Amino acid sequence: MKPLGSIPPGYLAGPNGRLRIGGEDVEALVARAGDTPLFVYDLGLIRARIARLRAAMPAGLGVHYAVKANPLPALAAAMRPLVDGFDVASGGELGVALAAGMPAERISFAGPGKRQAEIDAAVAAGATLNVESESEAERALDAGVRLGKTPRLAVRVNPSFELKGSGMRMGGGAKPFGVDAARAPALVRRIVAAGADYRGLHIYAGSQALDAGAIIEAQAAAVALARSIALDSGSAAPLVNLGGGFGVPYFAGDADLDVEAIGAALAVEIAGEEPGHAIELGRWMVAEAGVYLTRIVDRKESMRRIFLVTDGGLHHQLAASGNFGTVVRRNYPVAIATRFDAAPDEEASIVGCLCTPLDRLADDAMLPRAETGDLVAVFMAGAYGASASPAGFLGHAPAPELIVVGDGGGA
Amino acid sequence: MKPLGSIPPGYLAGPNGRLRIGGEDVEALVARAGDTPLFVYDLGLIRARIARLRAAMPAGLGVHYAVKANPLPALAAAMRPLVDGFDVASGGELGVALAAGMPAERISFAGPGKRQAEIDAAVAAGATLNVESESEAERALDAGVRLGKTPRLAVRVNPSFELKGSGMRMGGGAKPFGVDAARAPALVRRIVAAGADYRGLHIYAGSQALDAGAIIEAQAAAVALARSIALDSGSAAPLVNLGGGFGVPYFAGDADLDVEAIGAALAVEIAGEEPGHAIELGRWMVAEAGVYLTRIVDRKESMRRIFLVTDGGLHHQLAASGNFGTVVRRNYPVAIATRFDAAPDEEASIVGCLCTPLDRLADDAMLPRAETGDLVAVFMAGAYGASASPAGFLGHAPAPELIVVGDGGGA
Repeated sequence: MKPLGSIPPGYLAGPNGRLRIGGEDVEALVARAGDTPLFVYDLGLIRARIARLRAAMPAGLGVHYAVKANPLPALAAAMRPLVDGFDVASGGELGVALAAGMPAERISFAGPGKRQAEIDAAVAAGATLNVESESEAERALDAGVRLGKTPRLAVRVNPSFELKGSGMRMGGGAKPFGVDAARAPALVRRIVAAGADYRGLHIYAGSQALDAGAIIEAQAAAVALARSIALDSGSAAPLVNLGGGFGVPYFAGDADLDVEAIGAALAVEIAGEEPGHAIELGRWMVAEAGVYLTRIVDRKESMRRIFLVTDGGLHHQLAASGNFGTVVRRNYPVAIATRFDAAPDEEASIVGCLCTPLDRLADDAMLPRAETGDLVAVFMAGAYGASASPAGFLGHAPAPELIVVGDGGGA
Repeated sequence: MKPLGSIPPGYLAGPNGRLRIGGEDVEALVARAGDTPLFVYDLGLIRARIARLRAAMPAGLGVHYAVKANPLPALAAAMRPLVDGFDVASGGELGVALAAGMPAERISFAGPGKRQAEIDAAVAAGATLNVESESEAERALDAGVRLGKTPRLAVRVNPSFELKGSGMRMGGGAKPFGVDAARAPALVRRIVAAGADYRGLHIYAGSQALDAGAIIEAQAAAVALARSIALDSGSAAPLVNLGGGFGVPYFAGDADLDVEAIGAALAVEIAGEEPGHAIELGRWMVAEAGVYLTRIVDRKESMRRIFLVTDGGLHHQLAASGNFGTVVRRNYPVAIATRFDAAPDEEASIVGCLCTPLDRLADDAMLPRAETGDLVAVFMAGAYGASASPAGFLGHAPAPELIVVGDGGGA
C-alpha cells in the first residue's frame, strides 16, 4: 500500500455521496463538459486563497499571478481583478494576459530564450521585459529605437543563494536565468543610461518550497541583494519582484505552507524600504482549486492486483503520473469521486488509458471499491496540468476545462 | 564534461560545413518551415531501415508500424506501403491509419482503456481489436451485435515473463495490459464461441531493449506461450503479434541493436509453425530518421559556465530534456548543425527557452564554439518527439514537421 496525498480543503461530498466542486455535482459537471476527462477549476477557492494571502502579506506588497501555472484564457480573465500584475513567460502568454484585460504596465515578461518577435511585442505593448542577459537588454533597447517606444526594462538577477528545499532551484550556481548578481549593477547602469524606463529587479531563487523558514531566508537575501544592487548601480529599483517559490502539498506528509509566517517576516524585512516589492505566485494560487475528473472504463485483475483503467491519463496529467521532473513517483491526492463519502476498503492502482506503463494515476492505493463507470478525481490539478502535459500523445482529445464558482468553503 | 549520444549514421555536413538532412541544407529546411524550431524526418533513412529489417527477418514475418511512435499523418501515409500493418493505440490513431490508406483488416488497436466509442469505431471499420480484458471483449461482442458486424478480435496477453533490460516493462508481473496468460485460453474460447472473427494473440513484453539476446529470449517465450494458448484454447491463432521492444541507441555507450541476430533466431523459432507471426515496431523504424532543429537566441555566461539558450525546448522534446520516464538525465546526440564539421572546442550547456530548470537539451557538452544565430540539432527525434511533448506549455507555438526524402545513405 502506498499513501495518497491529502485531499485539499474545500472538497466535500453531496447528499448522494458524490464529490461536489464549487457546489456542483461531479456528474453534472461531466454532463456540462459533454464527456470525460475534464478539468474543473473552482474560482471560489482561488479567491479565498488570494484573500488569505492578502491578509497574510504586508500592506502594499504587490501580488502577481504567474500565468504559466494555468494559462486558460477564461481563468486569466477571472484572475485579473484579484491580483496586481501578471508575469508571463512567452509571447503567447503575453497575448493571454493582454486579452484578459491586464494593463500592459502591470505585465512582466521573464524567460531565458526570448525571440526578437517576442521582445518586439512586449516593447510595442508596453509590458516590462525582465531582461535575462546583457545581449537581451541590447536587443530590447534596439527594439525601442526601431519601434519608437521607450522600453520598460527590469533586470532578472541570478542570485548566488538558493531557495533551500525547493522543488526546482532557480538560483545558487551557474544558471541560464538572469545575469549573475555581480554583473547586475553594470546592466542597470546601462539600461538607465540608454534612456529606457528602468522598472527594477527580478530575483527568483526556486519554486515549490514547503518550508516557510527557507522562503523567509531567501526573501531576506533577495531584499538585501536588491538593496546592494541599488547602491552599486546608483539607481533605486522601482519594484523588486521577489519571485515565488510558495509550494503546495502534493504528497502524503507534506504540510500546508505557513504563509502567515512568511508575511510577518517579510513585513519586518521591507519596513521602511523605498522601492515597492512584489511576489509572483502561480502554483500556490491555483493548484488546489483544480480537479481532473476521469471515468473508469475497465476494472481489471492481474495476478491478484486490481487495476482501475480510466479514460484519462498522463496526456492531461503528466505531473500526477510522476513523469515531470520527478525522480521517485509518489501518489497525488486521488479519490473515487462518485463514492467520495465511502471508506476505503480495497487496494487498487488507477492507470490511464495510454498504452504505456508510464501512465499511472495512483499506485497501490487504499480506495473504496470502484466499478466501471465510476469517476476518479485527481486533485491539485489547477496548476501545470492541462498546459503542461503532452495533450496529443497517442491521439486522444484534449480535456475540456470548466470554471465553477463556489463559496470558497467547499460544497 | 558529460558525453553526448552518438549521432546516428546518415548525417553528414555539406560543403558549407552545415548539417544536411535528406540531402538538404538545414538553413534551407528552416526557410521552408518558415521559422525555428522544427522537426525534419528523412523518409529515405526510414526506407533503408525497413529494408534492413526485412532482410534480417524471416520471410513471411509480418512487419507492423506502431503509429504512436510518430503519428504525423503524412508520415503514416508514407509508411503505409513499407509495412504489412499498423498498430494503433486510440480512436484518433485509428483515424490516422485509415486516412493513410491502410486497409482496416491490417490495422490492430491495442490499449488498456478503450472507450465504447473507440470500440464501436474499430468494429465498424473492421479493424482488429486487441482486447485487453474479458469485459472489453464483451463490450466488443456487444458492439458487433449492435452494429451488425462480425468483430475482429485478438487477445492481448500479459505474459508471465519480462523483456530483460527493456526501458519499459510491459510483462512479468501484475499489469494493466492484456489478460494474464493463465486466463487467455478461456477468453479465446469465449471469443470463438461468440462467433467473432478470432484474429490471434498479441504478446508484448517490453520496449526499448538494446540487448539482442534478451529480445531473442522474450520472442522465444512468446512463441511458446502462443503455442500453449492455442493448445489450451483449441484454436490456432491466425496471427501471433510478438510486439516490439527493439531499442535505439540514445546515449553514449549504447550500441546499435543486432537485428540480424534477432532475425536469425526468430527464423529458427518459427520454422514450420502454422500461424503467421508479426512484429510491431515504432521507435526502431523512425527515431533515427528525425532531427529537431532549434536556433540559439542567446549565448550566456554564468559563473564561468556557458549556456546556449535556444528557441526550442522540452515543449517539443520532453524525452530529450530527460523528463519522460527517465530517472537520471543523460544527453541525447546533439550537435551545432551550422558548424557540423567543426571540432568541439568548448564545454557548454544547451537549454530551451522555457522558464524552468527542467528545460535542458544538453548538459556540459563538448561542442564547437557556437554563437547566437547558430542552429542546434537534436537527433533521435523521429519517435516520441512532437506528439509526446507538452506542446502548449508556456504558450509557445507547436513546431512544424517536414518530411524530406534522402537516398538513405546521408548527404
